[in-house]
Amino acid sequence: MSILVVGSVAYDDLETPSGRRENALGGAATHFSMAASFFTKVRLVGVVGDDFEQKHIDLLKSRDVDVKGLTIVPGGKTFKWKGKYGLQLNEAQTLDTQLGVFGSFKPVLPDEYKKSEYVFLANIDPELQLDVLRQAENPKLVACDTMNFWITGKPDKLKEVISKIDILLINDGEAKMISGENNLVKAARKVSAMGPKILVIKRGEYGAILFANDKMFYAPAMPLEEVKDPTGAGDTFAGGFMGYLAKTGKIDNENLRKAVICGSTMSSFQVEDFSLDRLRTLTQKEIDARMKAFKELSHFDL
Amino acid sequence: MSILVVGSVAYDDLETPSGRRENALGGAATHFSMAASFFTKVRLVGVVGDDFEQKHIDLLKSRDVDVKGLTIVPGGKTFKWKGKYGLQLNEAQTLDTQLGVFGSFKPVLPDEYKKSEYVFLANIDPELQLDVLRQAENPKLVACDTMNFWITGKPDKLKEVISKIDILLINDGEAKMISGENNLVKAARKVSAMGPKILVIKRGEYGAILFANDKMFYAPAMPLEEVKDPTGAGDTFAGGFMGYLAKTGKIDNENLRKAVICGSTMSSFQVEDFSLDRLRTLTQKEIDARMKAFKELSHFDL
Repeated sequence: MSILVVGSVAYDDLETPSGRRENALGGAATHFSMAASFFTKVRLVGVVGDDFEQKHIDLLKSRDVDVKGLTIVPGGKTFKWKGKYGLQLNEAQTLDTQLGVFGSFKPVLPDEYKKSEYVFLANIDPELQLDVLRQAENPKLVACDTMNFWITGKPDKLKEVISKIDILLINDGEAKMISGENNLVKAARKVSAMGPKILVIKRGEYGAILFANDKMFYAPAMPLEEVKDPTGAGDTFAGGFMGYLAKTGKIDNENLRKAVICGSTMSSFQVEDFSLDRLRTLTQKEIDARMKAFKELSHFDL
Repeated sequence: MSILVVGSVAYDDLETPSGRRENALGGAATHFSMAASFFTKVRLVGVVGDDFEQKHIDLLKSRDVDVKGLTIVPGGKTFKWKGKYGLQLNEAQTLDTQLGVFGSFKPVLPDEYKKSEYVFLANIDPELQLDVLRQAENPKLVACDTMNFWITGKPDKLKEVISKIDILLINDGEAKMISGENNLVKAARKVSAMGPKILVIKRGEYGAILFANDKMFYAPAMPLEEVKDPTGAGDTFAGGFMGYLAKTGKIDNENLRKAVICGSTMSSFQVEDFSLDRLRTLTQKEIDARMKAFKELSHFDL
């Protein structure tokens, strides 16, 4: 089944201990789309300026990502983010943000997108997320991401979004902020009570925890010998996770667990190189092998 | 098989968001002994003052811990540690340390302890750890813990210890300090090359990673609704881990993984109450149920 993603498409200037990149393809919707495309067809809604390069549109098309929903604004500038990571690689320091055309983004779903059964609302203004939900016609499964900026800046609109979705993918700190609870289990229960029956807590190098149907699933992150660029790891995780759910159409505990491993697998590749470079060359065989490596990493018998 | 532990026996003044305790039984060797006692017989070498209460000796004896090696110094004061935890519970702030008789601790192994096949050197001065190794007669498996204080303070002696042991149990930061590597996988490889073929990286609420025989195993920590007191979690982990290995006598990958889960299980109980209160009442049935909960927490099918 096709999956609809709405979010940022951007160019990044990156600096990590492994090097620098300028004008590297980035943005939440981009990372999500590339990752999900290994599992299902993707429909992307976003906005860029006419500085957005054709080769990047071609890259998305080559992965069967439908870019009919990607608006190109003549004379406009694509969203630009400049960030730097320290040795620990766990958090980016934002050096500069130029919203460009993304600052006045009003997502409009092409007619044929409106019946998308699977929807991912990447981290954007909750008012825009609500706009998308109004346009979507009876989706089967809606997932959403957000960030501290919206949790503190637009708490009521964000709560309205959260009340309408099925799956929330956020990190530890965001779950604690939204719930006002310092304990993660209590925070998860409180957030779930606000709407999303399924909660995925992303913990970067420490993996992810799935809370669903009164059960917890703790997926490790793959310990890697080299992490070149963590940018987009969370969106890539979401792409693998949602892509697998859209492909298989089953939302039971067993399938949700496998979806988390798909997400972990995709983000483990993502961080191995700058921008989307690793995903460009990734093969199904490599994905299958990494999934098996996750099984080997976490398996034990009693 | 009996397991020998050498380390601190202490009284703690604790403050956590859940409350306070004064003169609570603590110390690395105490926590280790109590946890390991659920799997095997334990021989404890340590030192206390004559302020050490009989009821605490009785508690250890009630768990079949041999305290022949616990020296009671007449007129001496037991090691006293005062610490406080913030809301995150991940690191204690030491408010006061009174070494007392522990300041001049010279571990002496009773003759019948010298042939112990399993040895755990808790976090003490590496010179004392070497002393113990000189007294131990051909042990089958030696494990060791340490801390940043010794890594920077006595690096050469610590390296000598590390070169002589089979298993090192440390945290992320310590592995990076010892190796000078910021990447955990590279750090683990470097530390293993210094001696210990088996390395367990403890990550608190994020679980533990076992590096052994060129394989990694990532064990989750159990997400808990209430953590009252994290003191001794690492030593309790070591007690469950080593206790299980001593009980079963097998050091292959499969058994090492199960030992890590035993360690995680014991420390998940340990933090549920202050001091050793949870372990006092713990039953084998509860341990078995928690082990199964760990399996359920991390299991997935491909």
